[in-house]
Amino acid sequence: MAFISIVEMIGTVAFAMAGALTAIEKDLDYYGIGIFAITTSVGGGIVRDLLIDRPLPASLENPLYALISLLSAGFVILFYTHITKLSRMLQFFDAIGLGAFTAIGAEVAVQMGFQQWYVVVTLAVLTGTGGGLIRDVFAREIPYVFRKEVYALASILGAILYIFVYQLAGSQIALYSCFLATVLIRIYCMENDVHLLRVGKVNLE
Amino acid sequence: MAFISIVEMIGTVAFAMAGALTAIEKDLDYYGIGIFAITTSVGGGIVRDLLIDRPLPASLENPLYALISLLSAGFVILFYTHITKLSRMLQFFDAIGLGAFTAIGAEVAVQMGFQQWYVVVTLAVLTGTGGGLIRDVFAREIPYVFRKEVYALASILGAILYIFVYQLAGSQIALYSCFLATVLIRIYCMENDVHLLRVGKVNLE
Amino acid sequence: MAFISIVEMIGTVAFAMAGALTAIEKDLDYYGIGIFAITTSVGGGIVRDLLIDRPLPASLENPLYALISLLSAGFVILFYTHITKLSRMLQFFDAIGLGAFTAIGAEVAVQMGFQQWYVVVTLAVLTGTGGGLIRDVFAREIPYVFRKEVYALASILGAILYIFVYQLAGSQIALYSCFLATVLIRIYCMENDVHLLRVGKVNLE
Repeated sequence: MAFISIVEMIGTVAFAMAGALTAIEKDLDYYGIGIFAITTSVGGGIVRDLLIDRPLPASLENPLYALISLLSAGFVILFYTHITKLSRMLQFFDAIGLGAFTAIGAEVAVQMGFQQWYVVVTLAVLTGTGGGLIRDVFAREIPYVFRKEVYALASILGAILYIFVYQLAGSQIALYSCFLATVLIRIYCMENDVHLLRVGKVNLE
Repeated sequence: MAFISIVEMIGTVAFAMAGALTAIEKDLDYYGIGIFAITTSVGGGIVRDLLIDRPLPASLENPLYALISLLSAGFVILFYTHITKLSRMLQFFDAIGLGAFTAIGAEVAVQMGFQQWYVVVTLAVLTGTGGGLIRDVFAREIPYVFRKEVYALASILGAILYIFVYQLAGSQIALYSCFLATVLIRIYCMENDVHLLRVGKVNLE
Repeated sequence: MAFISIVEMIGTVAFAMAGALTAIEKDLDYYGIGIFAITTSVGGGIVRDLLIDRPLPASLENPLYALISLLSAGFVILFYTHITKLSRMLQFFDAIGLGAFTAIGAEVAVQMGFQQWYVVVTLAVLTGTGGGLIRDVFAREIPYVFRKEVYALASILGAILYIFVYQLAGSQIALYSCFLATVLIRIYCMENDVHLLRVGKVNLE
């Protein structure tokens, strides 16, 4: 357990639950729920590990990620009949996973010694959106990140915040600030249906 | 020819045929059949080579893989009108490819010096299921490995068998045991419609 | 600007426009258009950088690629109402991107010291077709390269031309010859509806 940080654990649980709920939406059985949970949660970390050129992804070395994902899937199976708004619940967990992996991506970029803001932001956004993107490709959906502007934007703003807070207060506070800011921006815009660019669908003009 | 092992050749032919049959199911023409055959058969090997951090995937260095795949596709084109149960034939070849690449994945993991059973099993399963997963993404299907529990399970059991046999009888016998066990478990459960977890669809409870 | 070659810039603009037009076809909004433009144009380069084992893809290091893509998307948004044949325009830009990235892929392979024609051709084709393939997977289409034989063939012929011209006249002329030949073959066959293997759909025989 020592090798998985709290933020990484939160992200893994959240993406696993988002993956499990996606499988339920797609009418898959218990097995499909478990494997979607693992793929979604581990996908974020594998994108991160590919980006930092790690020899073997952390989730291939450490069975804890798959175990946490399966436990999260079991939890969803036990309680999903009590969920009235399944797709909103899915978006909620997806927002938490987005925030967690954005923060981890920014931290990894800074730890690797990258100085330019563009590199840190890009690594953070790709790490944050990777898990959901892989889930949506396997579920045959147009990935969420292509359809919701405040999804990628929340991740970009969170990563920029990371850079500022990092210079003022160091790595730990930056990590949690980025995580919280990303999640709150995403959920606020989700709840209030905020869209920046949707003045009108282009094809309706 | 010296650089392609027998199991790798069997896996390449089987996945190429499964890819060709998928293209036929999707009403693609001769070209589509050929390119699906190459992608499916080479996909398994590319996943393996990415996982072991090989500088250039074997199938990019050696034209034999693409050549064998095209010959397999040609064979399917000549004889597919005699196939009465196309989707069952597809599953049959897919099972053989799954077994071959599971065995190769386990062998590669052990050769690279990984000791923990979790790493060996994970590398074996990802190598075994990679080709079919890529094929299904390109064919716009929810990947098979997400829908059939005894697909991934056959691969997991085969990889565990590899580890035991390897310690008792060495690499060669372990390779063939893993290959045969994975194929037989997969085909047995396919033929007898065995499902472990499908007590009932979750959404029907 | 110094670090992006002219051919790379042409390819980035063309694939960005093809991505933007795909998003319009899929009824996505301004945001979706921008993000499809970036993904499609950067996808080709990322495939190239993964193949040559570059530590960090060029598009992650250099914000110019994303910037050029967004400007191209803005251009498409301003003028797309004047486009009468949207899918033909899409294919036109896709052909230019295919040619540009095929040429870059061949150049990279030769610069890395690969001597065998098979390696050069394979790297060129994968680099050239990567951007469109990623776009089609995210747009939930069976990738174009699986459906049109003269798509992959144009790329293969362009890459073979690169090898010959390189030995006779060096890198620069080879680059532009490969680019022009690939684009012209692709557009000629597109305009004249040339199909090599489509004697008849296999399932109609």
